[in-house]
Amino acid sequence: MEAYLDNSATTKVLPQVTEIMAKVHIEDYGNPSALHQKGIEAEKYLNYTRETIAAFLGVKEKEIIFTSGGTEANNLAVKGAAKRNRRRGTHLLTTKIEHPSVLNCFQKLAAEGFEVTYLTVNREGIIDLEELKHSLRPETLLVSIIHVNNEVGSIEPVKEAAAIIKEYNEKIIFHVDAIQSVGRLTIKPAEWGIDLLSMSAHKLHGPKGAGALYVRSGVLLEPLLDGGGQERDLRPGTENVAAIAGFGKAVELAAPNIDRQRETLYSLKKNFYAAVKEKIKEVKINGPEDEKGAPHIINLSFPGVKGEVLLHALEGKGVYVSTGSACHSRQSTPSHVLQALGLKKQEIDSALRFSFSILNDGQQIDYAVKILAEAVNELSRFGH
Amino acid sequence: MEAYLDNSATTKVLPQVTEIMAKVHIEDYGNPSALHQKGIEAEKYLNYTRETIAAFLGVKEKEIIFTSGGTEANNLAVKGAAKRNRRRGTHLLTTKIEHPSVLNCFQKLAAEGFEVTYLTVNREGIIDLEELKHSLRPETLLVSIIHVNNEVGSIEPVKEAAAIIKEYNEKIIFHVDAIQSVGRLTIKPAEWGIDLLSMSAHKLHGPKGAGALYVRSGVLLEPLLDGGGQERDLRPGTENVAAIAGFGKAVELAAPNIDRQRETLYSLKKNFYAAVKEKIKEVKINGPEDEKGAPHIINLSFPGVKGEVLLHALEGKGVYVSTGSACHSRQSTPSHVLQALGLKKQEIDSALRFSFSILNDGQQIDYAVKILAEAVNELSRFGH
Repeated sequence: MEAYLDNSATTKVLPQVTEIMAKVHIEDYGNPSALHQKGIEAEKYLNYTRETIAAFLGVKEKEIIFTSGGTEANNLAVKGAAKRNRRRGTHLLTTKIEHPSVLNCFQKLAAEGFEVTYLTVNREGIIDLEELKHSLRPETLLVSIIHVNNEVGSIEPVKEAAAIIKEYNEKIIFHVDAIQSVGRLTIKPAEWGIDLLSMSAHKLHGPKGAGALYVRSGVLLEPLLDGGGQERDLRPGTENVAAIAGFGKAVELAAPNIDRQRETLYSLKKNFYAAVKEKIKEVKINGPEDEKGAPHIINLSFPGVKGEVLLHALEGKGVYVSTGSACHSRQSTPSHVLQALGLKKQEIDSALRFSFSILNDGQQIDYAVKILAEAVNELSRFGH
Repeated sequence: MEAYLDNSATTKVLPQVTEIMAKVHIEDYGNPSALHQKGIEAEKYLNYTRETIAAFLGVKEKEIIFTSGGTEANNLAVKGAAKRNRRRGTHLLTTKIEHPSVLNCFQKLAAEGFEVTYLTVNREGIIDLEELKHSLRPETLLVSIIHVNNEVGSIEPVKEAAAIIKEYNEKIIFHVDAIQSVGRLTIKPAEWGIDLLSMSAHKLHGPKGAGALYVRSGVLLEPLLDGGGQERDLRPGTENVAAIAGFGKAVELAAPNIDRQRETLYSLKKNFYAAVKEKIKEVKINGPEDEKGAPHIINLSFPGVKGEVLLHALEGKGVYVSTGSACHSRQSTPSHVLQALGLKKQEIDSALRFSFSILNDGQQIDYAVKILAEAVNELSRFGH
């Protein structure tokens, strides 16, 4: 048996997605910029995905810009907005628990003369809206807040944050990294007052290599790349038509079922955690236990057990999980997110992230809990 | 019948490439940064492609950095090298016939305080090595020359250029945009003295969404994106594993046959041009006629006929060509490449690019020439 519980790192691609991609590769392989029929056929896929995503988010089609993935969408949003609108102010605001593709942009901008305030989070990984309110300044240019944290699953109150920011100064640009939330939680950027929103296809059973940035009409960005003028000059380069088509298909498949799927995921997560607590004496949850947490992510510490050792014990039995986010799982620095939550070193070292998808079922959860309990009990006996 | 003669814009994906991509999507969908088996399986595809490309170019594996495509590879090379090594000098050198993804980077760098010299080309679209030699200065930091021009197919003497540049000052960084040449012409960056070389998968029957930059050991670049540390910190973001696997497969399939395929392409092109000259009275070649031109590109002007009108007449009969490069085919500005060759406005307006691939055959060529001759004769009668 196998239980892939690393769906925050990446998800399995749905067969319908692979199918549409193969069709693009074999039949509709034209360059969307070409003037002839083959180009127009390729462009139709871009239009289809743009329409699908725009309808899903309740925004205009022309407000969707395709990128090569979530990292590029975050970089384009943060660096693009800061650099293009620098004259309006040089104060930037973000949180301590952003993904590295946001956090490292802010560090780069700080080195270039911007001043950055990092909002703290509580033990559950959630920001304080009062702290946000008091951190805004006349010279604040950009605020960036992650919707669902990728390591602990905390849901940030981005709707409420948008209201506070826009009430303070409607010209402040508000970016939300929604890479973990799109397809799982409802998010309405236009309605809520979000100016920029990052998405990634491969977190919702689409392919790697496609992402998108919602750019509210009127918000100006400096592009990261220069070239042939594609994507309204914001993202040149021949569009990855197949992956974008797959992205559209993944969103189309998720959209009508989002409420039901959210309930399914919450129930998988609750059953998992209940069974873990029953079978393992010492376990601690990092992040919210209730619905302040995302439906698909749970982060647990097993005191006295090394997370990495446990991860390898689990993979030996076909249970795949993560020690932190995949993107820095091969670095030895302790997770900045778990540190921000105030965890002790020992708790960080023993933390594992379990992340679910709609392709997981109850049997897999039961199996994973059984294997996990055996491994934890075995390893804690040997003091690992 | 159909004849797709727009292979410089993009190529049809080979079935073996689609096959490996589907396998990645369905079976080996892990995140290469994950510590568990699913991550390691995904990483194997990255290693495979890195080995395949490195062997093909005669360079080291760690010198290959994956990007989202050719535009990003060119941007990373030009902007990354200039910005990271600014202290060494602020003079940059390139040609007037670069692709927009190179040219527009230089324009951006010029606006940031760099001084840029643009080398001219002759009527055939080829640079003058003497002009290159005289343009080098003690403060020259970077030289960027396209290997095969995408609009007229002229082959630039990059091997000889490398020798001149490195003899003048071996610290000058030499970048070659080889997006149109990789898989068609022999290119040995390490042997020739090239420091940076851009490639794209979808120009050689691989998928869109994968490119690579050869970065000679010791050459330092400033990354365009910040994030999770992938690709030796030069290109963060979850790697597009499927597209990269497809890229490797495309190179693997091309590598052993490159000499034979080059001859096939040259003979398609020669037969095409001979038949065109026989059937159409007024036709002018833009770019080199002989083997100073790439095997797969020919650019022709049909005086008195509007290129765009002719393009649409041809597509009506299943013959797909381009007026210029696909990336600015929807702009109304005349091609900067054809202008650099010294063409008159009327010659530019009547120019079409025909670009071949190994999937074209003699029958398609005969058909394309027949349709082309009928259309040109028809249109010139009406003075279009």
